[in-house]
Amino acid sequence: MNKTCTKLTKMAKELTPRSENYSQWYQDLVIKADLAENSAVRGCMVIKPYGYAIWEKMQAELDRMFKETGHVNAYFPIFIPKSFFSKEAKHVEGFAKECAVVTHYRLKNDPENGGIVVDPEAKLEEELIVRPTSETIIWNTYRNWIQSYRDLPILINQWANVVRWEMRTRLFLRTAEFLWQEGHTAHATKEEAIEETKKILDIYADFAENYLAIPVIKGTKSANERFAGALETYSIEALMQDGKALQAGTSHFLGQNFAKAFDVKFTGKDGTEEYVWASSWGVSTRLMGALIMAHSDDRGLVLPPKLAPFQVIIVPVYKKNEELDEISKKVREITGKLVSVGISVKYDNDDNKKPGWKFAEYELKGVPVRIALGPRDLMNETVEIARRDTLEKIVVKTDGIEIYVKNILEEIQKNIFKKALEFRNQNTCRVDSWEEFKKIMKKGKGLVSAHWDGSPETEERIKNETKATIRCIPLNQDFEEGVCIYSGKLSRKRVIFAKAY
Amino acid sequence: MNKTCTKLTKMAKELTPRSENYSQWYQDLVIKADLAENSAVRGCMVIKPYGYAIWEKMQAELDRMFKETGHVNAYFPIFIPKSFFSKEAKHVEGFAKECAVVTHYRLKNDPENGGIVVDPEAKLEEELIVRPTSETIIWNTYRNWIQSYRDLPILINQWANVVRWEMRTRLFLRTAEFLWQEGHTAHATKEEAIEETKKILDIYADFAENYLAIPVIKGTKSANERFAGALETYSIEALMQDGKALQAGTSHFLGQNFAKAFDVKFTGKDGTEEYVWASSWGVSTRLMGALIMAHSDDRGLVLPPKLAPFQVIIVPVYKKNEELDEISKKVREITGKLVSVGISVKYDNDDNKKPGWKFAEYELKGVPVRIALGPRDLMNETVEIARRDTLEKIVVKTDGIEIYVKNILEEIQKNIFKKALEFRNQNTCRVDSWEEFKKIMKKGKGLVSAHWDGSPETEERIKNETKATIRCIPLNQDFEEGVCIYSGKLSRKRVIFAKAY
Repeated sequence: MNKTCTKLTKMAKELTPRSENYSQWYQDLVIKADLAENSAVRGCMVIKPYGYAIWEKMQAELDRMFKETGHVNAYFPIFIPKSFFSKEAKHVEGFAKECAVVTHYRLKNDPENGGIVVDPEAKLEEELIVRPTSETIIWNTYRNWIQSYRDLPILINQWANVVRWEMRTRLFLRTAEFLWQEGHTAHATKEEAIEETKKILDIYADFAENYLAIPVIKGTKSANERFAGALETYSIEALMQDGKALQAGTSHFLGQNFAKAFDVKFTGKDGTEEYVWASSWGVSTRLMGALIMAHSDDRGLVLPPKLAPFQVIIVPVYKKNEELDEISKKVREITGKLVSVGISVKYDNDDNKKPGWKFAEYELKGVPVRIALGPRDLMNETVEIARRDTLEKIVVKTDGIEIYVKNILEEIQKNIFKKALEFRNQNTCRVDSWEEFKKIMKKGKGLVSAHWDGSPETEERIKNETKATIRCIPLNQDFEEGVCIYSGKLSRKRVIFAKAY
Repeated sequence: MNKTCTKLTKMAKELTPRSENYSQWYQDLVIKADLAENSAVRGCMVIKPYGYAIWEKMQAELDRMFKETGHVNAYFPIFIPKSFFSKEAKHVEGFAKECAVVTHYRLKNDPENGGIVVDPEAKLEEELIVRPTSETIIWNTYRNWIQSYRDLPILINQWANVVRWEMRTRLFLRTAEFLWQEGHTAHATKEEAIEETKKILDIYADFAENYLAIPVIKGTKSANERFAGALETYSIEALMQDGKALQAGTSHFLGQNFAKAFDVKFTGKDGTEEYVWASSWGVSTRLMGALIMAHSDDRGLVLPPKLAPFQVIIVPVYKKNEELDEISKKVREITGKLVSVGISVKYDNDDNKKPGWKFAEYELKGVPVRIALGPRDLMNETVEIARRDTLEKIVVKTDGIEIYVKNILEEIQKNIFKKALEFRNQNTCRVDSWEEFKKIMKKGKGLVSAHWDGSPETEERIKNETKATIRCIPLNQDFEEGVCIYSGKLSRKRVIFAKAY
């Protein structure tokens, strides 16, 4: 009986291998590494403490980056009056459809069946929408904040929850409610608004590459894939291990669309009135999905040290309790050294779990470095260090261990980026024939750089025939004469096609 | 024309004096100091960047305190299925009434009148409530997380928005949507859950006194004022300048009520099954209201240095542009010194505004210390330092200024607490006659310590006759024989009565 239980516990922690079923592997990993789970409310997730701790690290870094570039935080209402959505013609098409609608503001006891029912007398005059994004309510507010060029720019960010009623949901990647930040800026000139849009794209790319350790392609979206209400949408696009692309962040140049919709004008230095120029931009808990999928393996998560809730796990290996006391004494010393150079450490001295169980558990949770030490290590003044990314183990002296571990953490951060970059390079190809394009998309693997004639119709047909969409039109590419892979019409630029999340 | 404009601008920044209309003074201050404003959505506020920056400081300190005592953050859905509320009998009475109800998940174009309408076909099978508090959804989740005593305790906190459909709202003090943290803990024993409840009360009191600089009384609530579903509610109570009390934080011992409602049991060490014990606790953006009302004056906000978005404002006083250059050079040097000892500084070198305007503006915004310097100061190696709390000005040498300012900031933090404590002491009295009680409550000023017979009926009658409620039954008070101020029945403890926000 006990044996069966142990086996079941062990099996419960095992992941479906990626090669067998990538999608199931992802689902297993999110659940078993205690990152998130589905809730009782359709499409809404519970973000568990370990998952939330990673999100908090992401928030802290992004928040610092926004503030260093002059942005401030504020908070706008979660509800948006229904009529606000109709004010920007394209925005309503994109956002006012699948969303949570508040129609009543009171419940009452049900005298007939018990329980509680909606009070029909408490019907709102105008329905309220739970925000799917906040351009409308924010620009309605900005109207009162902006009179003169002196009131500009406004560089505001908001950390918030939003709701989009998705039919098919997946933890972190697509959920009805998700957490995000949304920046909403107001400017006196078109140039300044575009500059802001690009500046944020650079911040997102910097964050993706140097914190998430995920290489990204910066580009603009085709008209079909543009944010509803934007003149131009910039995005960063990442490649996941299954060969699908994932949009990891977007930054929109909104032109004067929302200023016109909400009548937001300013008086310039020369006394003339003009509509205000705008940008908006956001990243969400979807980044958690990207982080998980980009680096992890069949043993579990692989976390970049800069975002790991704790960077080092220390596991004692012992038989007798006196040994544990001696080890714990040494661990306090080691922890002190590590903490002194800014490394975060957890010591797992739980006597109910075997070292082997702990090794597997912290591999599953992606802790970058594991330190194990037993009685022999105490004698030799050594510890065993294991790297999560390469699974290499090495025995080192405890003297100077803080420098050693600090270096390893930096190496891991670089190495997992390098690995992801190599994977992307191996899975990106330039394609110039429609037959080859179809063949690649049938396998559904990787990014394809190909010529496109620039028309939405061609884009739509390619999508219908291959399920591939244009992920982006990369920035800073060289001019190149060519012909559209599908229509054969002239083209001057390559775009990135892929199947996408 | 220009002159009139200037006058209007100046007047627009003036506050209604407290003595004239305290409530209007509060409203003026919140608006004019750019803390928050009403939004287009009834009862929902916009928290503006300066107000949000103070809230962020509060969050950072509280979050640190929670983490230092072993708590972790997580995130649960914003929506709660309607039926969840009916599961805990008292909770439903308290919370399921005035709330935002989501009944539909889709909008569609209105073919008849244009615009968009709710799609009647997209009606939810069960309505969703926008969380007014999360006990129900969280305990429904904990059921799957808890099997054995080894899974306990769970010490989770959530930073979130919540919605309670209040009829009469006031910025920060009572709004339909507000921001808060809600802790939800699960324990194996009653004693441990009570200990947690009290530990959090101590954290709240520590935060109130040492960060908000507001003295508070710790106590338990009478049954009438208890959280719906709690066995005991602890609170911290503060006194505002108008003599009204404000409940600044609550910590609830929930017993096994929610565990029973959601069937959350654990197997103990001895193999027996028992329901889990619970606590929940929260503070909200209401603390912003407390902070504003406790210290501010007719010139504006007075912020405790520990929560000020920036602690020092530097204003240059000059006539010619060359002078500004010289001053700015000196300011860079001073700023460097201040920052090196952890002081946050803003330099306002806006050439469009006069020093006098700036002085008034930063007084309105409650910046703890103002440094002004002009050409003569450059010559003398001095600056003028003004304290916001006492309005004292002094000229000091720039040499060693960082130590000087650091000391002043510490003094201000202590002084505004002391001032608030003295005010509370002057406005607290022990009352033993019903006539005197009524007289005091007619003026509606201050806290009254009086005997009460312990019955909800007496409490209710006192409330009806005087509008005074029992704010709390203070902890750690000496046993004292007495008779109830209203009924004349025997009593062994005094309680605190006041009119309250």
